[in-house]
Amino acid sequence: MDKVNLAAMLATFSEHWQPKVIADINDYELKLVKLQGEFTWHTHADTDELFLVVGGRLTVHMRSGDVVLNPGELLVVPRGVEHCPEADVETHVLLIEPRGVINTGDAGGPMTAHPERI
Amino acid sequence: MDKVNLAAMLATFSEHWQPKVIADINDYELKLVKLQGEFTWHTHADTDELFLVVGGRLTVHMRSGDVVLNPGELLVVPRGVEHCPEADVETHVLLIEPRGVINTGDAGGPMTAHPERI
Repeated sequence: MDKVNLAAMLATFSEHWQPKVIADINDYELKLVKLQGEFTWHTHADTDELFLVVGGRLTVHMRSGDVVLNPGELLVVPRGVEHCPEADVETHVLLIEPRGVINTGDAGGPMTAHPERI
Repeated sequence: MDKVNLAAMLATFSEHWQPKVIADINDYELKLVKLQGEFTWHTHADTDELFLVVGGRLTVHMRSGDVVLNPGELLVVPRGVEHCPEADVETHVLLIEPRGVINTGDAGGPMTAHPERI
């Protein structure tokens, strides 16, 4: 039974917008991702999505307004709510969502990632 | 759409071993709990359980050995694995598990909590 150290995991990769699976809870995955710049507007029709910022600063744009997350802050974007993450500095985020969720949701496109396990 | 600040949530309660629900992701709950002392040995037959330490130091006793978690470290205790959390200093932990999981699992007893939402 091994513990997972978030900082140690973050030290193993550098690319942006490429979530890495670090743990499983039943049929859910915990992922770490490094973000910088603006993502793409998208929606997850079938699932909520949790963003917990562990470093940096994340802005989640939504049609209803922006939410800015600092380290130690989290936001659950409910299913069906269109959103676009943006980070003006390099930002490290813990994601919790059901296994198999695609980062770009319904939008697809070049930023679609296929998360690897680290 | 409101963000959740972990430190602000932790400031709203002081009791130990009483998890508080701070967010929902589909049918899963995120809970914060303050721990000090030793819990009770128990098992969750039907679900994995994630412990992420945000402050303090958590020892998870298992029959296979102990795992000690410092801030920024997490452990997933798989379903069916008997465990007993212990904290020698006041420790703050983020829990992720399906809605309705009882903290004492199969063991029951006086430390069984009924999590409230904060």
